[in-house]
Amino acid sequence: MPNLNVPAALESRPFRLALAQINTTVGDLEGNTARIIEYIERARAVGADLVAFPELAITGYPPEDLLFKPSFIADNLRCLERVAAAAVDIAVIVGYVDARDDLYNAAAFVANGKVAAIYHKMYLPNYGVFDEDRYFQAGRKAHICYWRGVSIGFNVCEDIWFASGPTEAQSYNGAHLIVNINASPYHRGKGDWREKMLATRASDNGVVLAYVNLVGGQDELVFDGNSLIFDGRGEKLAEASQFVEQLLVQDLDMGAVFRARLHDPRQRKEKLMRGELLEGMSVESIDVPDDYEILGADGSISHDPKPPLPSPQPPVLYDAIGEVYTALVLGTRDYVRKNGFSRIVLGLSGGIDSALVAAIATDALGAENVTVVSMPSQFSSEHSKSDAALLAANFGLQYLTVPIEKPYIATIKTVAPVENEIRKHSSSQFSLAEENLQARIRGNILMTLSNKYGWLVLTTGNKSEMATGYSTLYGDMAGGFAVIKDVAKTLVFQLCEYRNLLAGHELIPHAIITKPPSAELRPDQFDTDSLPPYATLDPILQAYVEDDRSPAEIEAMGFDPELVRRIIRLVDRTEYKRRQAPPGIKITPRAFGRDRRLPITNGYRG
Amino acid sequence: MPNLNVPAALESRPFRLALAQINTTVGDLEGNTARIIEYIERARAVGADLVAFPELAITGYPPEDLLFKPSFIADNLRCLERVAAAAVDIAVIVGYVDARDDLYNAAAFVANGKVAAIYHKMYLPNYGVFDEDRYFQAGRKAHICYWRGVSIGFNVCEDIWFASGPTEAQSYNGAHLIVNINASPYHRGKGDWREKMLATRASDNGVVLAYVNLVGGQDELVFDGNSLIFDGRGEKLAEASQFVEQLLVQDLDMGAVFRARLHDPRQRKEKLMRGELLEGMSVESIDVPDDYEILGADGSISHDPKPPLPSPQPPVLYDAIGEVYTALVLGTRDYVRKNGFSRIVLGLSGGIDSALVAAIATDALGAENVTVVSMPSQFSSEHSKSDAALLAANFGLQYLTVPIEKPYIATIKTVAPVENEIRKHSSSQFSLAEENLQARIRGNILMTLSNKYGWLVLTTGNKSEMATGYSTLYGDMAGGFAVIKDVAKTLVFQLCEYRNLLAGHELIPHAIITKPPSAELRPDQFDTDSLPPYATLDPILQAYVEDDRSPAEIEAMGFDPELVRRIIRLVDRTEYKRRQAPPGIKITPRAFGRDRRLPITNGYRG
Repeated sequence: MPNLNVPAALESRPFRLALAQINTTVGDLEGNTARIIEYIERARAVGADLVAFPELAITGYPPEDLLFKPSFIADNLRCLERVAAAAVDIAVIVGYVDARDDLYNAAAFVANGKVAAIYHKMYLPNYGVFDEDRYFQAGRKAHICYWRGVSIGFNVCEDIWFASGPTEAQSYNGAHLIVNINASPYHRGKGDWREKMLATRASDNGVVLAYVNLVGGQDELVFDGNSLIFDGRGEKLAEASQFVEQLLVQDLDMGAVFRARLHDPRQRKEKLMRGELLEGMSVESIDVPDDYEILGADGSISHDPKPPLPSPQPPVLYDAIGEVYTALVLGTRDYVRKNGFSRIVLGLSGGIDSALVAAIATDALGAENVTVVSMPSQFSSEHSKSDAALLAANFGLQYLTVPIEKPYIATIKTVAPVENEIRKHSSSQFSLAEENLQARIRGNILMTLSNKYGWLVLTTGNKSEMATGYSTLYGDMAGGFAVIKDVAKTLVFQLCEYRNLLAGHELIPHAIITKPPSAELRPDQFDTDSLPPYATLDPILQAYVEDDRSPAEIEAMGFDPELVRRIIRLVDRTEYKRRQAPPGIKITPRAFGRDRRLPITNGYRG
Repeated sequence: MPNLNVPAALESRPFRLALAQINTTVGDLEGNTARIIEYIERARAVGADLVAFPELAITGYPPEDLLFKPSFIADNLRCLERVAAAAVDIAVIVGYVDARDDLYNAAAFVANGKVAAIYHKMYLPNYGVFDEDRYFQAGRKAHICYWRGVSIGFNVCEDIWFASGPTEAQSYNGAHLIVNINASPYHRGKGDWREKMLATRASDNGVVLAYVNLVGGQDELVFDGNSLIFDGRGEKLAEASQFVEQLLVQDLDMGAVFRARLHDPRQRKEKLMRGELLEGMSVESIDVPDDYEILGADGSISHDPKPPLPSPQPPVLYDAIGEVYTALVLGTRDYVRKNGFSRIVLGLSGGIDSALVAAIATDALGAENVTVVSMPSQFSSEHSKSDAALLAANFGLQYLTVPIEKPYIATIKTVAPVENEIRKHSSSQFSLAEENLQARIRGNILMTLSNKYGWLVLTTGNKSEMATGYSTLYGDMAGGFAVIKDVAKTLVFQLCEYRNLLAGHELIPHAIITKPPSAELRPDQFDTDSLPPYATLDPILQAYVEDDRSPAEIEAMGFDPELVRRIIRLVDRTEYKRRQAPPGIKITPRAFGRDRRLPITNGYRG
């Protein structure tokens, strides 16, 4: 049973909480630790009593099989010691990998220069992009740290998604503030769902709930930040911006939590009843002394007067399309820079996909770091070439033109003589080979520029293409990062419109947005020669790829059965191409990549 | 407590056990079910009392995210019904996906046309290549089925690796025969380790232990078969061949198990003591009636007289190098055929890697299905061209020559004009770009032939190259299947010697095996210009990639510290290439691919 007398300290001053929404890099233990210490100093400078960092902030998230390297684990523990040494006159909650007897996804409560409590994540996600059962053991013990008069429970990410998880155990055992540290990958619409759940969790338990999230790109994932603080009624107290680093600071009236509990006998009764239900879980209470506290004559505890908080800036938040665009910009910037590149190159066809990627790359890296290459063939239309040039000029990009006709003809001529030698039982699909060859020569040219000048090649294929295989392996799929591989074609259009709206003018020429999509690999070719209109294709793909609907269920949505079967067959047989695709940014609940793990060799036609 | 009176049926006749070591295809529910029913009929025809099939035989293994499709699960259950209907006058143990309340990796005991018991795998592997926690719930209930006088416990794969697992629980509760059904992926040396464990498990529990394994290739995995039967003293009774389908049939003297137990009070006492220790696990005994049994006047149970067993053929087993070679042949054959291809093509450089892949492909598919292409450049030596031609002739392969000089020069000339436009701050690495371009033109030529004639392109890079990035993305890495991507260069040499020994003559010309390795992408280039000798490189790579040794630990093995750091840096920075590599056959404890999941964006330099 917790002490239900409101401590004098809580009445005399607010508890100042800081959430450090930082951008870490997986594996960069030194860099991450330096950043953590920098934010501890910033939080202390604004008078924060506690600063919390994201899940696995020391290692970056997800560290994947780096966790199997004993030296990596040991180095991470040494970094925790350095973080602890910096925790003076402030408490710190920080994510790292604990390794007492096995590996744990852990959060340390650190104060007075040392670790006061270590929590092990209880719910290990092992679905979607997550593989935490591969690495970690689950914890069964939660803590409540009494610090500067406040009883603080803390847990990690997935733990908060379970109503009967540690948040409930900690609350029923007396915690008034729950700090949940996260590395929660972005996808479209996740924020709304998350915010409702967190508000419910806060009000269910009558606690102040602080959610701190990672921000930044890591390979296929983008973490969106948007850290949140709710009061014990589930009202949002504070919110950090999406997609940027931020130190969110909020003064909390913790006495209000005390008083609310005293006046809500249902909550106290339920606490006793439910305390028994949390099977196998224990909660330990820890008094964390404060070397810096000043004991008043009346028994109250005080500190040096806090500096007044500057009035909070409104968070920068985005609408449904804007948040996708911003996720793509951040994911691209971080992939390029964290991998040691400064400049990128991409092929500009005059079509909408490469236009969008050029826009994202420019917003991510600056126009001075983006080179676009027009690689026309005999099948390229005049408007494609002029549209590409106009787009490059609008964005102020270095624009190169490399016609592919000569290498194309040289390759065709080189291969021709052996065709007579090839036995007759092998049937020729000439047009497909010729189409792919053009794309592959373009890939070679971009990779040659990449090798010569150290530019990262961005690919421009969208999710509809990735799904159906309407793309050339080693051709337009050649490159280091596939910016829009999780963006369906219909969303590509919306994102271009969004970018133009943001600019306030026709930054992406309307002709690019409105012309019928074409690969221009043979005369008068249009995407609709091979595929249904995207407005039909994309819902079928979403039903099949993201929602695991069967052919029969998709037909029942009102689509032509023959078309549904054909599209599904295309998706299935394209697995081999996707396996060799570059990584790209996840923006949907199920992206291609580690989110969707299908065999290449697959006899299922259901 | 089991009945310890030896049933008359056990004294009057042996129990005839069949293990169906079959080659399934993931997702091909119809094909797999047809094959299962065919083997049930074969087993019945030889008078078997019981036939056991591998883990997840109905779905193939591993079905991966197909398991998230409700239609796939439902179809798999319908297939189980068809298997059950075929189980007449014989009992069947078969692996499938159960879905009562959640998904389970299950084994059904089927007899008299219906399912008698359903077992859910208890130990779900979630390491290495395995992701079973992603899909399945773990079971907690084991069964003993009494069938034709024998008490049969059965469980699934990983379950047998735990001494206190269901095998112990079933044995202590009276099972005399344990059937363990498997889909156990091959790697070098695994068989020895497995056989020792199984023998120990049999003798520890005093049971006949039957281990039935899958055979065949599935994407990056090869299952090696080699099903085994041990008696209650751990002596091997029977063994199936490696790498081929087989129905292994063995008569078991089950009375001997009874008698041994009666005479070993320690075992019976321990049974009572240990029965309590198996926490959370229950064992249910089920009497499975036999619609076909004939009750004798003396109470004994008999059947139609069994046909005599033909004297067993000795199993085809391989030595340490031979089993790797055979795994590569089977993995290649199955990848090609199960994906609907009949013919392959590969580039033949005159070097040892492509020679080995040509040999494997020929053994896998027949010479008539293998086309090899020599693609000489100005840097190709005369001996490379003549060695390649000789190798093709030795194997009787279609041999094409496509010189790459013209497309190479055309591409160089096409790119040259834009180089002046490119700003000066981008530094040129001309030689690397030129080297890669040659490899990429070769990739384009092979892919053009693939697109025209429907041939699958095999790549020829080895594990040492894959590790260090000594390969060209979209160049020599372009293709559908990377046969030797898990074979270190030093093992490549051994495999070529093995193949020649098998042939009894110089099938792979000695010049190919003995000349210094060279990529021949610039004048007088040798691998040792960029890399240490392979005899030095490969142990460093194994220590780092397979054994997770730190740089300091590898240095302590006696290698030059500067060299170790350089090699490790090469491995780390090559992750982006490996992510776009085609799949290839796992033959070591840790292959690149899903076995080793490292971030591309990775700041760790430890």
